[in-house]
Formats: sequence, C-alpha cells, structure tokens
Amino acid sequence: STKWASYGMFYKYQPLDLIRKYFGEKIGLYFAWLGVYTQLLIPASTVGVIVFLYGCATVDENIPSMEMCDHRSNITMCPLCDQTCSYWKLSTTCATARASHLFDNPATVFFSIFMALWAAMFLEHWKRCQMRLNYKWDLTGFEEEEVSDHPRPEYEAKILSKVLKKESKNKETEKEKLTWKDRSPAYLTNIVGILFMIGLTFAIVFGVILYRISTAAAMAVSSDPYTKDNVRVIVTATAVIINLVVILILDEVYGSIARWLTQIEVPKTDKSFEERLIFKAFLLKFVNAYTPIFYVAFFKGRFTGRPGKYMYIFRSMRMEECAPGGCLMELCIQLSIIMLGKQLIQNNLFEIGIPKLKKLIRYLKLKREVKLEPDSNYKKPQQYEADYNLEPFAGLTPEYMEMIIQFGFVTLFVASFPLAPLFALLNNVIEIRLDAKKFTTELRRPNAAKAKDIGIWYNILRGIGKLAVIINAFVISFTSDFIPRLVFMYLYSPDGTLHGFTNNTLSYFNVSHFEAGSEPREAMALGYKVEICRYKDYREPPWSPEAYDVSKEFWSVLAARLAFVIIFQNLVMFMSDFVDWLIPDIPKEISERISKEKLLMVDLFLKEEQTKQQIVEESLKGTAIPLLVLIAPLVYGLGLLFILPF
Amino acid sequence: STKWASYGMFYKYQPLDLIRKYFGEKIGLYFAWLGVYTQLLIPASTVGVIVFLYGCATVDENIPSMEMCDHRSNITMCPLCDQTCSYWKLSTTCATARASHLFDNPATVFFSIFMALWAAMFLEHWKRCQMRLNYKWDLTGFEEEEVSDHPRPEYEAKILSKVLKKESKNKETEKEKLTWKDRSPAYLTNIVGILFMIGLTFAIVFGVILYRISTAAAMAVSSDPYTKDNVRVIVTATAVIINLVVILILDEVYGSIARWLTQIEVPKTDKSFEERLIFKAFLLKFVNAYTPIFYVAFFKGRFTGRPGKYMYIFRSMRMEECAPGGCLMELCIQLSIIMLGKQLIQNNLFEIGIPKLKKLIRYLKLKREVKLEPDSNYKKPQQYEADYNLEPFAGLTPEYMEMIIQFGFVTLFVASFPLAPLFALLNNVIEIRLDAKKFTTELRRPNAAKAKDIGIWYNILRGIGKLAVIINAFVISFTSDFIPRLVFMYLYSPDGTLHGFTNNTLSYFNVSHFEAGSEPREAMALGYKVEICRYKDYREPPWSPEAYDVSKEFWSVLAARLAFVIIFQNLVMFMSDFVDWLIPDIPKEISERISKEKLLMVDLFLKEEQTKQQIVEESLKGTAIPLLVLIAPLVYGLGLLFILPF
Repeated sequence: STKWASYGMFYKYQPLDLIRKYFGEKIGLYFAWLGVYTQLLIPASTVGVIVFLYGCATVDENIPSMEMCDHRSNITMCPLCDQTCSYWKLSTTCATARASHLFDNPATVFFSIFMALWAAMFLEHWKRCQMRLNYKWDLTGFEEEEVSDHPRPEYEAKILSKVLKKESKNKETEKEKLTWKDRSPAYLTNIVGILFMIGLTFAIVFGVILYRISTAAAMAVSSDPYTKDNVRVIVTATAVIINLVVILILDEVYGSIARWLTQIEVPKTDKSFEERLIFKAFLLKFVNAYTPIFYVAFFKGRFTGRPGKYMYIFRSMRMEECAPGGCLMELCIQLSIIMLGKQLIQNNLFEIGIPKLKKLIRYLKLKREVKLEPDSNYKKPQQYEADYNLEPFAGLTPEYMEMIIQFGFVTLFVASFPLAPLFALLNNVIEIRLDAKKFTTELRRPNAAKAKDIGIWYNILRGIGKLAVIINAFVISFTSDFIPRLVFMYLYSPDGTLHGFTNNTLSYFNVSHFEAGSEPREAMALGYKVEICRYKDYREPPWSPEAYDVSKEFWSVLAARLAFVIIFQNLVMFMSDFVDWLIPDIPKEISERISKEKLLMVDLFLKEEQTKQQIVEESLKGTAIPLLVLIAPLVYGLGLLFILPF
Repeated sequence: STKWASYGMFYKYQPLDLIRKYFGEKIGLYFAWLGVYTQLLIPASTVGVIVFLYGCATVDENIPSMEMCDHRSNITMCPLCDQTCSYWKLSTTCATARASHLFDNPATVFFSIFMALWAAMFLEHWKRCQMRLNYKWDLTGFEEEEVSDHPRPEYEAKILSKVLKKESKNKETEKEKLTWKDRSPAYLTNIVGILFMIGLTFAIVFGVILYRISTAAAMAVSSDPYTKDNVRVIVTATAVIINLVVILILDEVYGSIARWLTQIEVPKTDKSFEERLIFKAFLLKFVNAYTPIFYVAFFKGRFTGRPGKYMYIFRSMRMEECAPGGCLMELCIQLSIIMLGKQLIQNNLFEIGIPKLKKLIRYLKLKREVKLEPDSNYKKPQQYEADYNLEPFAGLTPEYMEMIIQFGFVTLFVASFPLAPLFALLNNVIEIRLDAKKFTTELRRPNAAKAKDIGIWYNILRGIGKLAVIINAFVISFTSDFIPRLVFMYLYSPDGTLHGFTNNTLSYFNVSHFEAGSEPREAMALGYKVEICRYKDYREPPWSPEAYDVSKEFWSVLAARLAFVIIFQNLVMFMSDFVDWLIPDIPKEISERISKEKLLMVDLFLKEEQTKQQIVEESLKGTAIPLLVLIAPLVYGLGLLFILPF
C-alpha cells in the first residue's frame, strides 16, 4: 500500500480490495467514490476545455466586444461613484469585454446542460459501482442497523441522570426515553446557533462589500494616475482575498461549532450523531463558501438605482455596479480564486502541513522527555510506539466535505467557469494520493468499520445536483448577456445581427438631472462638456414623457429571461430523469449472479439437510432410539409457534 | 364476499385479507390501492368544496365582475367574427364573469399547491401501506422475477422459427436471442403507429375546433334572436359532447391497437408484455383524454391576432376567442363535462352494461342450444357450469387505467376545477363496489397471481404528480386572471385596488382600421355609430406612435406570469421533496418487527442445528461409524467451492 500512496502512480487504478482489507469497508468506499468521481471528471474537464477554447477562438468575431472596443463610437459613460469619479469612455473597458466573451458565449449554455446531465450520470454510475462493490465485498445481505444501533454513552448518561432526578420524586423505574420536552432546549440552541452563524457569514460578506465600495471611492480621489487606472483590479483582488481568508478561518470554526451543537443535542446512536453533524457542518460550510459567489452572481449591480436616483447604503455609500462587460466576468474571477485558493491552501497545505507540524511537536516533546531521563539508553522505538506517535484518525467527514464542496464548485456555477472541472480534476489526482499517504503514514490506523453505502453524502450530492440545474438556469439568463443578445437579435435588431447591441443596452441620462451634490467635480475630465451620459440599463430616455421609467425592452428582456429559466429547468430535469430511468441501479451481471447464487445456496442447503437427515435416520436404525424421531417435528412446531403471532 | 360487493357497505373498510385469499395478491393490491386512493380523496374533496364555497361567498365582492356587470360603464366591444357579428356591450357577459369568479379566485392558488402536496402524500402513504400489506401477506422476501421470468410461448415460437430459418443455411444450434435487427421492424411499426394515433387525436380535436368556428359563424347569421343569444352556449355544449363521444370511441379503439402493437413486438416475458402494453395504452389514452383540455387551457384565444389583423385558418375562418370572463370558465366546463361524462358512461354504464349484455347473449345462445337438444332433461346447472357462463377475466389493466386517468383529472387541472376531487370520490365509492360485484359475480374467478407492488402504475402516478405541478403553475399564471390582477394592483392601479382593472385589460381599436370586408355589416346594431371598439389584449391604442404594437404592460404581465411559474414550480417541488423525505418508506413498527423476526429466525435455526448435531454426535457415539464425521466438513467444503468462483 505504500506504492498506491505515491504521486507517481496517479494514472493507475487504486487497489481497492487491499484498501478495504486494511482499512475496512467505510474507507474503502470513500476511496472508491473518490476514484469514480475523479474518473468522471476527465470527460467533464475535456468538454470544459473545448468550450473554453471555443470562446478563445471566437473572441475576435464577437460583435458586442468589437463594438465596445471601437474607438470611433466614442460613448460617454456616467460616473461610477459620486463627486470623485468622473465621466469615462466605454472603449476603456475593451479588455474586460473581450475577456468576458471567453465565458459568456453560446457554448456555455450547452456546457451547463452537459454538466447537469453529467451530475445525473455520475450519481447513477456511482450507484452501480456501489452495488458491484457490495457484491464483491459480500455486503449485499448486511444491514447497517445491526452494527450502529447501540445508544451512545452520552445518551445513556443523560437518560440515567433523568431517571435519577425522577426517582427522587417517585420510585418507578420504567424504561426512559428522551421526550420532545427534554430535547427542545437543545433543538432551540441548534436553530439559534445555526441562524446566528449564517447571519455572521452574511454580515462578513456585507462588510467586504462596504470595504470594496469605500476603498474604491477613496482610491478614486488619489491623484496618482496609475492607482486610479487600476482601482477596479486592486479592489476586486483584495476583496476576494479577504473573502477567501474569511472562508478558510470560518470553515475551521464552523466545523467545531457544528460538532458542539450536535453534542448538546445528545443523539441516540453513533449513526444519527454522524448524520446530524454532517448535515449541520455541510449547511454552515456551504453557506460560508458560496455566499460571496451568490452575491456576485445574483445581487451585485442589480440594486444600483439609476443616475440621478442612486441607491445608497448608510446614506453616503452608493451600491456598487458590475464591470461594463457584465457581472459574469467578476463571478468567474471570484469563483476561480475561491475555488483554487481553497483547494491549494486548505486541501494540500493544511492536510499535509498540520499533521506534519503536529508530528514535529509531538516528536520534540518526546525528545525533551527523553532528555529529562538521560539514564535510559536510547533505543529504536518499537513499531507500535512509532504508530502511537501518529495523529489519531478523526473520521472521514472532513475528506467527504471537502470533495462535496468541490462538487458544488464544479456543478453549481459551471455556466460561468467552464474550467472548474479541469481544476477539480488536477486537485483530485493529487488528493487521492495525498489522502492515501495521510491514511497510511501520518495517521494511526483507523478502526475498520463496515458500511454499505456512503450514507447521507449521497443525498447531499443529489440535492446539489438538483440545485445546480436551477442555479445554472439563473446564471445563464440573469448574469450572462446571452438572453439580452437573443432578444435584441430577434426583436429589435434592424438586420437580425448583433450590430448595435451595445448601444441598445445603454440608456441615456441628461447630466442636468443629477441630484445636487452628486454630480462629478471634474466635469471636463474628458476634454469636452458632457450633456448626455450613458448607463447600462433599459430605461426611457430623458426626452420621453415617462423619462427614466423602465422601458418596454426591460420587460421583454425580463420575460425572455424568465422563459429561458422555465424551459432550461424543465428540459434538464426531464433529461436527468430520463438518464436516471435509462441506467438501471443494479448492473445486470450482478443481479443475474445474485439470483444464480441464491438458487445454488438453496440447492446446497437442501442437499446438506438431506445428508444430515440420512445420518439421523441411519443412526436411528442402528441404535433404535424412537424418542429422537419426535425431536425434529417438535423443533419445527416450535418454529411455527414463533412465527405465528406476527 | 358478497357483503363487500353491495352498495350499502360503502362506508366500511374492505375485507382485504379475504379478497387476497380468494383472488390472489395482485387483485388484493388493486383493491387496497383503490381503497387508499378513495380514502385520501375525502380530505381533498373537502378542501375542494371549501374553496368552491369561498368562491361563491366572495362573488359579490369581486371588483372585476362588478365592473363588468356595471351598466353605466357602457363599454363597446369589437365583433367576435367577421361581417356577420356586430359590436356588443361588455355588460352582456356579466353572468359569465360572475360564474368564472367561482373558479378564478386566490383560493384556487392555495388549492393547487395543496393538491400537489396531496399527490406527494398519497404516493408516500401508498408506499407505506404496500409495505404493511407485504409484511402481512408475507411477501417481503418474494422476488417478482422468480415467477414471471419464463418466456412467453409467442416469443419461443418466434425464436424457433428464426432457428429453423437459420438451420437451413448452417447447422449450428446455439441458444438464439432476438437481436436488435430482428426487432427493429416491430419497433418501427410501434413508433409509426403511436405517432399516427396521436396525430389522429390532434386531427380530430382540430376538426372539432373547425366545427365550432364555422357553426358559430353560421348561427350568428340566423335571424332568430333566441338562437343568436345562445350561440356560444350551444356551440360549446355540442362541441364538448362531440369531443366526449370521440374520446369514448377512441379509448376502446386505442386499447386494442395498443394490444396489437405490443403483440407484434413479441416481448420476452409476460411481465415485459404487460409493462409495454400498459405504457402504450396509457400514452394513447392520456393524449386522447387530455388533448381537448390542453387546447382550451393553453392555446384557445392565444393566436387570434388583433382587430384589423386577425389570424385566419383556411383563409376564411378566424381563430376563436375565449369568453370575456377568461378561458378558465371554458376550461372548467370542458373539464367537468369530459370527466363526468367519461366516468358515468364509461365506468358505470360500460362496466356494468356490457358484461350484462354479453352474459345475456351467452345465455340466449345456450338456451337455443338447449332447445336444439330437446331430449335432454332440464336440470339446474352445476356451479362450475354457471361459472363457465361468466365472462373471462381480462386483467387489471383497464381498471387501473380508468383510475389513473381519473387521478390525472384530479391533479393535472385542479386549479381550474376544485370540485374534481369530489366527483372522483363519488365515482370511486361506487366504483369499488362495482368492481367488487363484477369480480365476484360477473366474471370467472381469475387465476390468483402473486405481486409485490402495483408495478409500472406507481411510476405513472409519480410522473402525473410531477406533470401536475408544472401544468397547474401554467394554468394559474396563463389561463386564469390571477397574475394580471396582481400586476395591476401593484404596478398600475392608482389606489392599489382592482378598480379599473377591466378597463385596463381592454385595448382600443379604431373601427376605420378594419381590413376591407371584415367590418361588421350591421354597424348600427347598438343604436349609435361606433368609432372606437375595445378588445381584450395589451396593445398600444390607435393614437400612439406604435399603434397596435404590444404594450409595455403586455411584457410586464408576461414577466410576472413567468416569474410565478418559476416560483410556484420550485416551491411546490421543494415541498413535495420535503414530504417525501419526512415520511419514511417503511413504517417503523414494520421494520422493527422484521428485524426482530430475523433475530428469532437465526436463534431458532441455530437451536435446531444444535439439536441435529447432538443427534448426529450421539448416534456416532452409539454406532461408532467414524466415516460419517467426515461428511459434515465435506459438505461445507463443497459449499465453499460453490461460492468461491464468484
């Protein structure tokens, strides 16, 4: 098993049977699952790379970004913040517009349908693999409950204390159970605790938004032209890094909080303890990891108001807008930094670094102890001593959690970042061997535990798969510019092409309508007097009778977006159900073998019984003890008596 | 069991165990399922009636229908057909508007959410009941395949003919299978046949639409004022009756076509034959029963065009419009007539009448035969002779099919007809006893067949449940006026109430813009010269620069409708999944009992084995035949040999 744990073997299949023999079924199933997942990431990342390359190849033919980069069009945009910011030219965002085409093209729509079906395929494929392993490892008849149905000592202690308390009042000692009343304070603490943690996450994300708004405004004042040019990049990058650090810290904190909350709940069995812990930890970590991404995808730039009537938080801070290339580009940056940072730092650094560090500390402690007793001769420690120095095994939950959160990155927002499966694949190829190394060399050998399936994780995977469909539908229709382009082409374009699309998405604003005090100080920054500036929204122009009201186009684009969500969601759900129905849960060869074996077993059993009967009869003949003849029917009668009452 | 079959016993539980003993598990499960379904229809119909009563109670407070009935408002509507129809007053449709409020009120939205959850509950509840029956009837270990995995004689005949054909060429006689190539002509016939049948259904529905349009136009010409007034009622009623008759006839035809198509497919086993037959028959009958309803719900009145630019079929026939009260009223009429008619005629008349008729014919035939042989003395026929005179048992498929189609009526369009569950309940209370009577007295006693579950029907029920969510979402948002009212209240109403809603939904048309030849002949029918008439649509008025273009309001209402579909669908799906997750599939007491029994069985088995071992040992001691000691390990070794290769 040392061979399996080396990086050089990444291309080979894992020796699952050996893993199972050494570590038990539970860990064997984890590595099997990780293997299946990683294997299926290969086609996903291949298609993802092709989609990305398609984006690269078509970037020069993309009319909207060409229009944005066209210096002749010379569109003057309204300032991005009050007073300190000035008017600016649309053509300065040319690079962003070109970059966002890499992720915002029709191939992305295809890719997110593909990934939804991929997720359904993966779950079905895993079910089959699990059945095959169950069969191979002889678990088909094994029932989970038999093993882990014993109450936990903490539960029994609580029962005991309750009984003792009661006994002081009356002397009955019937079998006690924790009632709803006993549990309600713990449940209440749980709910409050979880809501508080979720609130904390939201508050932190909100804090980062405030940081971003205020820094952007402060930097815009700076006279250094270099700083001014790079405001957006610097602000975005630092904000994402703050987000990442917060996520990493809270991840550890939430892990222990979830454990503490589950402990005060006092669940009855080990199994229910594990399930409750996993559920809580998953909920907290999921919210923690995805809140900033959800904000960028669905909320950023939606509530900015319009020039002359901006929305403010705390009266002075204007809500931030997305870059003119669309929020999709920012979503993509956010997603890639969080995903890569989380994987690199948490999975690889933490997983290797911390056990190594702990080992080092333990080793130093031991050395000091040895020094304190200088009389004992140094001798090579026994294997069991060396093993004892290793970290104890803390359960599979963190390993699964990490992978499930990654599965979320791969499926939930894949419409905005088609390279996610590739990065996940690269991480996992390393991860398998790292985990293997950790399990074989860094940790004490865990107790072998039997398990038939991966338990609650499967349900979580299914849930993520379902959520992914609806989130991708919303990302494509609301975050990307896919639908506005289609609507423009079929409803408003004079020649059926995208020429004029950029102009169409920008509304007009008469600068004399600025609220007093919010107009830019340097009105002449562009070298001429600005009378009309443009902003990205569908609103009536100043010369319309309903000036600055949302326009008809706004509603038609909204209707098209919503229609797309309905069509996409139902189509993908139907196709997933179809995949589900097409692939049987139990592989045919396994079900055939099982029924064949059953027949053989029955045959064998009958034969054996016959032989025994023969012996009994012969012996009866030989020794003539007629009493014994009565025993066999007696036993059967007894059996009937046992079965009948039910 | 004669007691069970009498109408008087409708309020009592069915004697399921007796049914199972007499008819076998399969029929027992059918009656159990029917019982559970009927029982759960009680709360559904109660809530349905309450919703309907709420509609009745609030009809006088409903502002839109009050506005329509107000004679002072005096709105002149555009003619409903070319030339022969004239302008008309909106207040003439007062009654329809009031009636449609009965089904088009906010309580309906609540009711359709309730019914979607009810469907989820029903499926979960049935799963539990099935488990309980399985346990009670000792079917937990029973595997379906063991019984019905034998190939059908037709299949073997086909294999044989194939082998014979092949043998003339080469002399190999390996085990033959029907390959894809052998089956493809049958599959092709199937697909073509089903598509043709579906096309036929569509064609007939289209024919009825043509009938409706042309009759309405013809009757409008008539000089009889009474006819003229009742045109809509007469046309609608006759058209629905034609639809109903066509559905009833095609139902029988499609049943035999599905059987024929399945026969030429030559499925391998009886089970697969049944499943394929059910699938095909269900598809055809579903399309047959629901096509006219789908048309009224989603297509009627959507493609009429606008005054001055109507849509025509066959150049002369204008597409029909919905009544001014909304299409929901028409949907409700269509639904109730088809549902009630189908149930009354098909279920009760056909099911009782036709077996009785066949019995009569058979009896008359017998009598003639008896007359032909006058020498034989008349004697009371033996019981088996009387039984032979009964109809043979044709399988449960028609019984299930009828109920599933009814389940569709109860769930799919429940948003438009909250009384559907009540009518279904009334029908089923009779149906259970009718079926019972039929099975006990009208049909030969069927062969008892074992079955663990209701098979493919469960999947069909699930599918209908899922479909119901999306269809109800569309009915509420597109067929009813629920969303336009909300949008008006929150976006356009000056005082936040529904006052002015009717006026808001009607667009203006300048009668001078009629296409030449389509203007009404009697321009002065209302006693004054009409210059502006109104029609139900969201379009710009004639004095706008974009006259007759769809207005901003059209797009905003469309967006709201689509948003409602998304919210409704996802909310209901989430709640259904929650119900699914909340109710465990296996009742707790059953799973506890099963595990307890397992333990008892193991104990018993061990004890028995011990006793046997003792006997063997004692007999060995007594007779001292050491050879026999070898047999036991030998048998176990043999067992190992059998198991190892897998």
